Amino acid sequence: MAMSRSCISLLTDFGLQDTFVGQMRGVIAGINPDACVIDLTHEIQPQQVMQGALALADAIDAFPPGTIHVAVVDPGVGSSRRAIAAEIGQQKFVCPDNGLLTFVLQRAPLRRAVELNEPRWWNAVVSKTFHGRDVFAPVAAAWSLGRALEEFGTVLASPLAELAIPVVRLGQCEIVGEVLAVDRFGNLITNVERRLVPDDSFQVEISVAGQCLRDLQTCFADRPAGECLALVGSTGRVEIAVVNGNAARQLHAGIGDEVVVRWRGENR
Amino acid sequence: MAMSRSCISLLTDFGLQDTFVGQMRGVIAGINPDACVIDLTHEIQPQQVMQGALALADAIDAFPPGTIHVAVVDPGVGSSRRAIAAEIGQQKFVCPDNGLLTFVLQRAPLRRAVELNEPRWWNAVVSKTFHGRDVFAPVAAAWSLGRALEEFGTVLASPLAELAIPVVRLGQCEIVGEVLAVDRFGNLITNVERRLVPDDSFQVEISVAGQCLRDLQTCFADRPAGECLALVGSTGRVEIAVVNGNAARQLHAGIGDEVVVRWRGENR
Amino acid sequence: MAMSRSCISLLTDFGLQDTFVGQMRGVIAGINPDACVIDLTHEIQPQQVMQGALALADAIDAFPPGTIHVAVVDPGVGSSRRAIAAEIGQQKFVCPDNGLLTFVLQRAPLRRAVELNEPRWWNAVVSKTFHGRDVFAPVAAAWSLGRALEEFGTVLASPLAELAIPVVRLGQCEIVGEVLAVDRFGNLITNVERRLVPDDSFQVEISVAGQCLRDLQTCFADRPAGECLALVGSTGRVEIAVVNGNAARQLHAGIGDEVVVRWRGENR
Repeated sequence: MAMSRSCISLLTDFGLQDTFVGQMRGVIAGINPDACVIDLTHEIQPQQVMQGALALADAIDAFPPGTIHVAVVDPGVGSSRRAIAAEIGQQKFVCPDNGLLTFVLQRAPLRRAVELNEPRWWNAVVSKTFHGRDVFAPVAAAWSLGRALEEFGTVLASPLAELAIPVVRLGQCEIVGEVLAVDRFGNLITNVERRLVPDDSFQVEISVAGQCLRDLQTCFADRPAGECLALVGSTGRVEIAVVNGNAARQLHAGIGDEVVVRWRGENR
Repeated sequence: MAMSRSCISLLTDFGLQDTFVGQMRGVIAGINPDACVIDLTHEIQPQQVMQGALALADAIDAFPPGTIHVAVVDPGVGSSRRAIAAEIGQQKFVCPDNGLLTFVLQRAPLRRAVELNEPRWWNAVVSKTFHGRDVFAPVAAAWSLGRALEEFGTVLASPLAELAIPVVRLGQCEIVGEVLAVDRFGNLITNVERRLVPDDSFQVEISVAGQCLRDLQTCFADRPAGECLALVGSTGRVEIAVVNGNAARQLHAGIGDEVVVRWRGENR
Repeated sequence: MAMSRSCISLLTDFGLQDTFVGQMRGVIAGINPDACVIDLTHEIQPQQVMQGALALADAIDAFPPGTIHVAVVDPGVGSSRRAIAAEIGQQKFVCPDNGLLTFVLQRAPLRRAVELNEPRWWNAVVSKTFHGRDVFAPVAAAWSLGRALEEFGTVLASPLAELAIPVVRLGQCEIVGEVLAVDRFGNLITNVERRLVPDDSFQVEISVAGQCLRDLQTCFADRPAGECLALVGSTGRVEIAVVNGNAARQLHAGIGDEVVVRWRGENR
């Protein structure tokens, strides 16, 4: 029986108007045409490593163990920044060492990582401006064929780069966080994770952009169209949404805005 | 010999800037990595069920029999709206029961449908806001492996939800319809289907947005650049286009605008 | 052992908001579900054959030999313009004969070409406005299964159509070219290819939009953020970029703007 198809995901800031992503897929197809290649997104804003790091971490739980995630938001391409391959938890990663794995590392332990310094796995000609095509794609394709991680380079001598990310402040009955991202629907995605709010809390209030919202709803249809609500999104984060509307536009809110979650506990 | 790859299509209002579609594909890859997964479109406007229903119906004839079409435009996600799987004509569908199949059902008979109420086919954790990933994708993937429809839930006890869609008014030598959609080229797609205009009609006139166009042309190159024309589009609908231009912008026309097709018949 | 999956690439001006690309993939899946189908881009501006021709030529080197590239920017669809299949260098092409192969033909020799005039390979019903779905996709899928080129039609009796493309003027120590394209990052892609600048040149200066840039840098990180630089892009063309910024916006420059590259040679 044939081996099950290996899975490779792609996340970049390349957009879809040019052929950059197509070229990466062409390189992969030349090495492992049987790989199951999946786009995570290519609409990370140019050079926004933080945005890419968050999107990557929030998406990977949907993928089968052993998936190779290729992440390329890489303003330092061609410079001395390291290119790496890493195993974190049950997943695999190929990317520049510029902090793209920051949020992933908060959730699962680094198992092994190497610097990609074995050029025999790269394309014959390596452009100084497109390692996505010439380094990351061919390494990921070779890895998906079952090569050992150590073949791609030497074990990292120093820790992975990590971004300084916005952390929440935890109070007795309060969490102060902020908006990390705005999605296609205008939903405000925050760094307040549901697990940080005690299960026995009650009278939960969520404040953002001058609005005070009562309770964490369970779904959009809990409230009438046009109304603003807070709920737990599909990645376990507290989100602020407008039913059939756009919270970012309606609240004039965006990335970096403060979000406060307060509750009453125990002595009720 | 290996079984031919099953085909799954995806149509959503998720856009491509976030990783929603990638997560759905990741779930499918974990269950049936050999499925041939095809994006119909993810640019349905948020919550526009009608737009999704039309795009779905106009696209499916291009797919092999037995394709599983996953359609997720789902403002009621997490509420009591039913999730369903259905066989209609030669095609299969997995979607919320909110009218997304309205146009499909106009063209082919419903053969069987079940409510998705067997959680063992779903993801272990089901987000209240992302059934695309946690219910529809895993059910479609399991179905693509050859499971029987009845395994996913109980036979529907009541009819499928259907939208109130704009219908044409048929006169003796006239059809009054409207613009249903505007495509990427600015072409106005109407609900006047070619088969409604008698084959022996002549002196056909198409009126829209104050313009009166003579004859149904056969292709864009029939007229000079910049000229407005009417023709039969690739889905059998009368469309209004501007050669190498944008009819929606040039005519200031859009969805809901009236379109009248008149002709002379028989006694010529 | 199973034959390796054939690779088919798609480049169109169809965008992703409609289901046009999905329908093409549906047709291919019905004929060769095992094909590895890759999107080059679908965001060529409507009817911009030149833009499509350039994007196609600059992308194909990343693909395995024998890849079938389907290119559909086709304002003449349904008219008497020829539809063709061609072998050029190590790659294969299916497209309208309207100049889409112009840049490809500058780099590799035409080996064989036929006019697609054997309707038995097409869809049963052929829309006059969507040959991408009804002619090009099914021919490409059949070709990917190993059919011979000659089965699809008769050998071309006259040369392929070619566009009048902007050519560089070569001086003693100077090349005058122009901006051919602007990519997602705002980088200005020119028709000055690196190989045209002598290897022993020095004091290279690049002039564009009133700016004079010194030297060809090797990567973006060579200069501080916000600074404008010239370098050799991933396709061997001289590009003008702004580090972590957008050169097109910052320089108010775009397609057609003159670019002059000057250098000193030999007698240094």
